[in-house]
Amino acid sequence: MTAELTGGFTLPGESGYEELTLKLAKKWGADVIRDSDGTALSDTILNAGYGIYSTICIIRDHNEWAKNHMDKLQQSFLVTNPKTAVEPFVTFHLMSDFSQGQFSVNDSPESMQFWQVFDRTSNMEVSRRLWTYEKEAGNLTIQNAVPYHKYTVSFLAYRIWEEISMYNHVTNGWNKEHLMPVDPRYVETREYLLQWMEDWCAAHPDTTVVRFTSLFYNFAWIWGSSERNRSLFTDWGSYDFTVSPLALQQFASKYGYQLCAEDFVNKGAYQVTHMPPNARKLDYMNFINDFVIHFGKELVDIVHRHGKQAYVFYDDSWVGLEPYGKRFHEFGFDGLIKCVFSGYEARLCAGVKSVTHELRLHPYLFPVGLGGAPTFSRDGDPALEAKKYWNQIRRALLRVPIERIGLGGYLHLTEGYPEFCDYVEQITKEFRRIRKLHEEGPVYHLKCTVAVLHSWGRLRSWTLSGHFHETEQHDLIHVIEALSGLPVEVTFLDFEDIKNGALDDVQVLINAGKAGSAWSGGDAWKDARVVEQITKWVYHGGTLIGIREPSAVEGFDTFFRMSEILGVDKDKGARVCHGKWEYHIEKIEGLLPAGFNIPGESQIYLTDGKNRVLAEENKVPALTIRDFGKGKGIYLSSFRYSLENTRLFLNLLLYGTNQELIPDYVTANPYTECAYYPESKVLVIINNSEKSQITSISTEFGVVNAQLEGYETREVLL
Amino acid sequence: MTAELTGGFTLPGESGYEELTLKLAKKWGADVIRDSDGTALSDTILNAGYGIYSTICIIRDHNEWAKNHMDKLQQSFLVTNPKTAVEPFVTFHLMSDFSQGQFSVNDSPESMQFWQVFDRTSNMEVSRRLWTYEKEAGNLTIQNAVPYHKYTVSFLAYRIWEEISMYNHVTNGWNKEHLMPVDPRYVETREYLLQWMEDWCAAHPDTTVVRFTSLFYNFAWIWGSSERNRSLFTDWGSYDFTVSPLALQQFASKYGYQLCAEDFVNKGAYQVTHMPPNARKLDYMNFINDFVIHFGKELVDIVHRHGKQAYVFYDDSWVGLEPYGKRFHEFGFDGLIKCVFSGYEARLCAGVKSVTHELRLHPYLFPVGLGGAPTFSRDGDPALEAKKYWNQIRRALLRVPIERIGLGGYLHLTEGYPEFCDYVEQITKEFRRIRKLHEEGPVYHLKCTVAVLHSWGRLRSWTLSGHFHETEQHDLIHVIEALSGLPVEVTFLDFEDIKNGALDDVQVLINAGKAGSAWSGGDAWKDARVVEQITKWVYHGGTLIGIREPSAVEGFDTFFRMSEILGVDKDKGARVCHGKWEYHIEKIEGLLPAGFNIPGESQIYLTDGKNRVLAEENKVPALTIRDFGKGKGIYLSSFRYSLENTRLFLNLLLYGTNQELIPDYVTANPYTECAYYPESKVLVIINNSEKSQITSISTEFGVVNAQLEGYETREVLL
Repeated sequence: MTAELTGGFTLPGESGYEELTLKLAKKWGADVIRDSDGTALSDTILNAGYGIYSTICIIRDHNEWAKNHMDKLQQSFLVTNPKTAVEPFVTFHLMSDFSQGQFSVNDSPESMQFWQVFDRTSNMEVSRRLWTYEKEAGNLTIQNAVPYHKYTVSFLAYRIWEEISMYNHVTNGWNKEHLMPVDPRYVETREYLLQWMEDWCAAHPDTTVVRFTSLFYNFAWIWGSSERNRSLFTDWGSYDFTVSPLALQQFASKYGYQLCAEDFVNKGAYQVTHMPPNARKLDYMNFINDFVIHFGKELVDIVHRHGKQAYVFYDDSWVGLEPYGKRFHEFGFDGLIKCVFSGYEARLCAGVKSVTHELRLHPYLFPVGLGGAPTFSRDGDPALEAKKYWNQIRRALLRVPIERIGLGGYLHLTEGYPEFCDYVEQITKEFRRIRKLHEEGPVYHLKCTVAVLHSWGRLRSWTLSGHFHETEQHDLIHVIEALSGLPVEVTFLDFEDIKNGALDDVQVLINAGKAGSAWSGGDAWKDARVVEQITKWVYHGGTLIGIREPSAVEGFDTFFRMSEILGVDKDKGARVCHGKWEYHIEKIEGLLPAGFNIPGESQIYLTDGKNRVLAEENKVPALTIRDFGKGKGIYLSSFRYSLENTRLFLNLLLYGTNQELIPDYVTANPYTECAYYPESKVLVIINNSEKSQITSISTEFGVVNAQLEGYETREVLL
Repeated sequence: MTAELTGGFTLPGESGYEELTLKLAKKWGADVIRDSDGTALSDTILNAGYGIYSTICIIRDHNEWAKNHMDKLQQSFLVTNPKTAVEPFVTFHLMSDFSQGQFSVNDSPESMQFWQVFDRTSNMEVSRRLWTYEKEAGNLTIQNAVPYHKYTVSFLAYRIWEEISMYNHVTNGWNKEHLMPVDPRYVETREYLLQWMEDWCAAHPDTTVVRFTSLFYNFAWIWGSSERNRSLFTDWGSYDFTVSPLALQQFASKYGYQLCAEDFVNKGAYQVTHMPPNARKLDYMNFINDFVIHFGKELVDIVHRHGKQAYVFYDDSWVGLEPYGKRFHEFGFDGLIKCVFSGYEARLCAGVKSVTHELRLHPYLFPVGLGGAPTFSRDGDPALEAKKYWNQIRRALLRVPIERIGLGGYLHLTEGYPEFCDYVEQITKEFRRIRKLHEEGPVYHLKCTVAVLHSWGRLRSWTLSGHFHETEQHDLIHVIEALSGLPVEVTFLDFEDIKNGALDDVQVLINAGKAGSAWSGGDAWKDARVVEQITKWVYHGGTLIGIREPSAVEGFDTFFRMSEILGVDKDKGARVCHGKWEYHIEKIEGLLPAGFNIPGESQIYLTDGKNRVLAEENKVPALTIRDFGKGKGIYLSSFRYSLENTRLFLNLLLYGTNQELIPDYVTANPYTECAYYPESKVLVIINNSEKSQITSISTEFGVVNAQLEGYETREVLL
């Protein structure tokens, strides 16, 4: 591919390496230079005619103010490990399970009214009259405990060390001051931060874009006291770190009911994104979202008043930002920056409305990368890393427009790696060419709209929570990674959407996950209207793809509520004495690509023997298809992302929508993919594998044949 | 070992082979000769001075009477497969899912009052006003169906072909008359059967023992209409085949509430022994048990009045017999015969009170054995089979007295197999010697009483339901097979027993099974008193062994209710974002024998890191131990029976009760076991493996060393 443009690229500049900065800015066609953590840009760079990004982290880096306002630090509910009463009293040292560096008990009267002691054996709260707290010792004692019952204490703690700063300290052995997170919930904090923002803008006249990293509240990350279990709880989508007595009081005023510690600590499990949210949690999320929007907008307005743009980084303290929420546009952000490893993360960024979309590519210009493996050091091969990461996201970029890309880190590290510098140049050219094609007209897609159904719906489009490797045990992340580059339209629905007619515009519905999870849907499946709507829709021609434990909920005749459509169910123990339908493996020509692999799920059984079984493991069906009315039910016992399985998934979408398996503008070779831009009459063919591949593509203008080197991008004018 | 006695052996005689019969009767020391299915004994045999067993099957073999009383055949509730309404009406042909040979719809008015139509989508019964039944077509139609809801119909059907007879027909391609099962619930049936029993006794003066095969009601075995799913439902402990409108009316009179079809069909799952029974099911079982005792006793009394003994076979139509029920002695049976493959079945027989215990050994004298493999034909090696089966039960016989053994089948088949005949002679000698040792005084056992806790408690002592191979997916069958030959006392408790102080006499408590099963316990674990009692008992010195998903129930802070004792829990999805305790594998000298294997269970996590982890799989703890007060909690992710795992289990029992791992009267070699009879001062050493083994045993008289051939039994006088 040939690039015809420059721009759309953000370069991390580095003082002391002015020449290198300007040389690479030219080589990579940068239009913007940014600072990185710990770097400042010199005047030479600032005055070189580039746009300037500056990074701010609004809630830390204010330690002086924080030390004078220790009651305005951010807080969190914590719950102790359970203790069994073997005497008539039980004493808890509240902090014994938790990091003393991160937390400090908030034992003010307004905090203690939210503390709760639970008898976890009987599932009952212990009356406040039966426990006492000794401030000095930090001990809480339960009187008149029921012998041999176990108890927990839930309490509020200040967070005295911002977690990203804490992680960097601990990982790198830093000896700096601990940065404390201030809570803008308090009017004093807000006043302070607004003034600080004003001052900052005035002091940075060269900055054209203020990058917020990110806003106010971090994802939950609770550190433990033991070296053997340092990270007690982490959830990238959790709202646990937003709480305070003041927030709870304001919530009660607004929503008319009081939340309690148990709403957060949830029997010790806390509230994870992977489990269906209840109504109270959704209310609380809306409450926080509303606050973050209000105060966020005030900050953005200051930036705008100074003639600068405001971008937000969608990775760190993004809780309450909710780019897929209905109100995101109210912030007034100009751009959204997303750090990407995977195709789905590119889609996650691209799908956010009314902002410039910018991707932060990997590898970062750091000596070591994720997990400590060398990148720009020793045996590192940053060019190869760049190639693999680009390959991972390129297929998504072919499907949706992204306006900007960029790098982060320390530019001088690239010095011994000319191959890397050349490959980044190639990436920037390919990126600009793809961007141009999107500008000229929409990409062609198959007549197939795929909806993913889960408890979060649109709010958690194109993500579960966190990066791929953090959620890889969930089938759905594999599914959305596969979908991120397929030539179909993709939408995300929740169960209310289903009841409100959202299926009308959908050809294929996917429900994928373990029973009870947010991804399968849990109790939402108890609602007969959901079952009715989907059944009706399939009967009239829709295709339901169920993966792992789709539509699973206890209490009905089948564990999978959609078993009539899927023709399979999972035995929870009651059907161990039931006969199993015999089957033979059937073949549908061309449907299963060589190398596909669907690991089995135990206890799956055919409900009535009417399915065609296409794959099995240990004599248990693993992939089945059946007709239901004019539609189809497809069951996969699991899904793991691979090139072969991605093609299998595309084939299932095509088969489910009664299309031929290799239609126009789909490559014949599963290791390759293509995208067609009708307006430009350009076909872009990519090789997703490291090996050379030969492929052909039928088009309305005839068959295109091509041989591509490993990871190659090829442009063909039709 | 040398046998000093004859007797205690039941030989299957065969007319036409009188000489062989008498020769083998002498060789094997028989005192009783029996008939087998399809054989009759000639006068030569009847008059040879042996006791004579005769087999009767009381509820079949009365086809002439049955044909004149088709409304007094046995019945069962059936439930159709679900159907989805895609029009405002749904029609079911009731019999379309079921074997026409086995069932015939009972559409009498008294039957139809118990039929039920269910909307399985909404979980609601459909009003009787909304469905109609056409007798001639056998069709039931639901009017005003809710579109896209699925429905089922539950109805009563007569069983017109007794299932054992049906199985033999189908398997052997017979062309005989179908035997019908009559139901003694009706007074006319009972009058007929009492007279028949009277006549039978009068007509068989040579018979000394009447063997009932078994009583009235078979285990449930529902055959389907499709060749691809012939056996829709089978449960050896199910009471489904006892039902009738009359029984339901009598139940309602006695218990004050009405049962309905749903109590039996249970959303299509039926009621399986592997799931916890509810109160209604237990009431119904008691109701049937009461009836079976009453009428059974009338038949036994007739037998006794004729000067004969009454034995009952505890394998076929035993439903309602309940040898472990509190009222079993009321029947007045003289003996109980159990067909055995496994050690636990020998214990199951031996544990029944106030009867003579007789084992029917394998292999049966049939051309082919279980699963169709040749025994007395072609490549069969009946001597080796006999050796392996004997090896399987011998270790159980060393622990508890059994008075009689015997064979079944066709004696002439032994003719080409002298090695078999010699080995059976050896078995009879070993058996009599062991029996003698038990008579001389009780066998020595370790100071360890083991209680198995499950929903059935004592009623399902030493069994789950059916033979080993039918239940091998359940860990508990492996546990009780291991226990069947260990030198410890074993008892079976239910959850009421726990609350009523049964733990006072127990050193080790075992709870083993999948969540929700009868073996784990399901909802019984919601009762805080159960948790309290076990916690208290462990704290004071007891040891809890939990296997797979012990004490598991949803709704509490941990899935395993005993997690405080076990130190592990299973993540049901909410803890996917929680940190895992690091651990290293610890070693306890001598605890884990070479070759042990505990396959892992996924999603198991350490609750507080205090356990010693002894084994793992895929980085998940598989075997852990922790102290709790003076007691211990031991967790195994699974248990599979093997010689090595059996020794592991013994070691855990010893460790759990603070005993040395190879105490007196325990062999040093895990492939061998021994039993000590203090009164006789005899130590019996057995080699459970096919290979020669060297072992030593510490005794109060010094160390015994021995080398045993494969499967050998060795007797040592101390």
